[in-house]
Amino acid sequence: MALMSGTDVAREITEQTTKRASEFEQRTGRKPCLAAVLVGEDPASVTYVKMKRNRSAKAGIESRFVHLPEQTTTEQLVAEITKLSEDPGVDGILLQHPVPKHIDERAAFEAIAPSKDVDGVTMHSFAAMAFSEPGFASATPGGIMRLLEAYEVDLKGKHAVVVGRSPILGKPVAMLMLAKDATVTICHSKTENLDQIVRTADIVVAAVGKPKFITAIKPGAVVIDAGYNEGNVGDVDFEQLADSASLITPVPGGVGPMTIALLLEQTVSAATRRADLVDVSEVVG
Amino acid sequence: MALMSGTDVAREITEQTTKRASEFEQRTGRKPCLAAVLVGEDPASVTYVKMKRNRSAKAGIESRFVHLPEQTTTEQLVAEITKLSEDPGVDGILLQHPVPKHIDERAAFEAIAPSKDVDGVTMHSFAAMAFSEPGFASATPGGIMRLLEAYEVDLKGKHAVVVGRSPILGKPVAMLMLAKDATVTICHSKTENLDQIVRTADIVVAAVGKPKFITAIKPGAVVIDAGYNEGNVGDVDFEQLADSASLITPVPGGVGPMTIALLLEQTVSAATRRADLVDVSEVVG
Repeated sequence: MALMSGTDVAREITEQTTKRASEFEQRTGRKPCLAAVLVGEDPASVTYVKMKRNRSAKAGIESRFVHLPEQTTTEQLVAEITKLSEDPGVDGILLQHPVPKHIDERAAFEAIAPSKDVDGVTMHSFAAMAFSEPGFASATPGGIMRLLEAYEVDLKGKHAVVVGRSPILGKPVAMLMLAKDATVTICHSKTENLDQIVRTADIVVAAVGKPKFITAIKPGAVVIDAGYNEGNVGDVDFEQLADSASLITPVPGGVGPMTIALLLEQTVSAATRRADLVDVSEVVG
Repeated sequence: MALMSGTDVAREITEQTTKRASEFEQRTGRKPCLAAVLVGEDPASVTYVKMKRNRSAKAGIESRFVHLPEQTTTEQLVAEITKLSEDPGVDGILLQHPVPKHIDERAAFEAIAPSKDVDGVTMHSFAAMAFSEPGFASATPGGIMRLLEAYEVDLKGKHAVVVGRSPILGKPVAMLMLAKDATVTICHSKTENLDQIVRTADIVVAAVGKPKFITAIKPGAVVIDAGYNEGNVGDVDFEQLADSASLITPVPGGVGPMTIALLLEQTVSAATRRADLVDVSEVVG
């Protein structure tokens, strides 16, 4: 068993990002700008946004914070995000999710201009990932791919099993692994014989949101734990699997840091593209 | 073994479509209109377009034919399609593919307004299928789902294996089956142990474009042959598998007729929605 250290790989990516952000500032006279939108006061979300803003600042990225009350309507949220999409001073937009249940999250996501969708949550970004067209990756799936790349995991022809099918995690990571020529199986709560299917995987991605849910693998499999449950526990039973996996991500210090690294990297990319006056339709398809 | 007759199911759908087209004409004073765009003179494509136009006419759908020369550039094709997207007299747009190799097919597809994408080829339509948002299905994948429904094949928890990963067939049918709670595996030319994986499937969708490529299944599996190769041969070795499959589509008379039925049905739906002045953003997400 060897650990895949998201912390280490994320640090390298963020060093590059910081350098690029500084070059951008020297060239344009302003920092790249990420707008973070938070609706309500969910403590975990408040913490995540704070952490993302701190990391942005450290990397030389300006962060703008739009904090809206819990009772914000879909229409109000869409209007706020549309304003940011049209604001020339904003390069990237992050809508912290989940949003309160009364809000149509999809409508809110779709108000993000594809050219500023640095968290990769729009339908456009999803299709771009699926079709290998220009566009931004969903941050966690993109982070997982970079981690696999850093540890030289060759996906070609291998069987990757994704457990979970959310629009910003399971589905996009499946599409990204398929683009790297993996054979991909998508499992979920209705899957029959889940354990048996997971045991056929060369690479397992756990993205199900249930603590220690994955308890058995094929010996030598690569295990990516994209879960993060209360008490710093992932979706994978780490103790159970650590010996038989060839590579495994810890929680914390695995996928988590990669997500933020990708978000910041994509923010600087969005800023650079906009400053270069590249036709956005060319960049994001 | 029992046959899944696409011919029969398509006839029923098209009877409904014809009735709806006639109601539309009585109400609005015009027929629903499908614009078919063909670039070049590829004999198979010429035949397909002719067939689709004949079927449209029979169903009471006006068909407009835009035939462009082989040497048409991407820019010219995008301009023609954009004109159709903006034309209030056009309800649906079909770009016959493949287009000549020098053309950027994705750019051409993306010039189709999502509200007129009755063949389901845009990135928007793909993401809508993947996320169960309002929008049009890719015609063949949508047809496959209707066929499964007509034969009461319950996908929930079952293992569906899709062989092929094209943007208008393999990937969207995988997403549609996932939305019906199947566990979905996507295989392709780089897949290792393909035969073994196919033999684990409860439902097999062959969409690979190689004659008689699928030669072994699990006894009792449902087999959908979305292939169509020279000499009326599918991707499935029908003779080999007919006895062990519980349900199997013939070629021809299986998936083919369903594709056209879906195209016509979605054209009338597009016309109806536009005539009802429904906000298109509500209809297509």
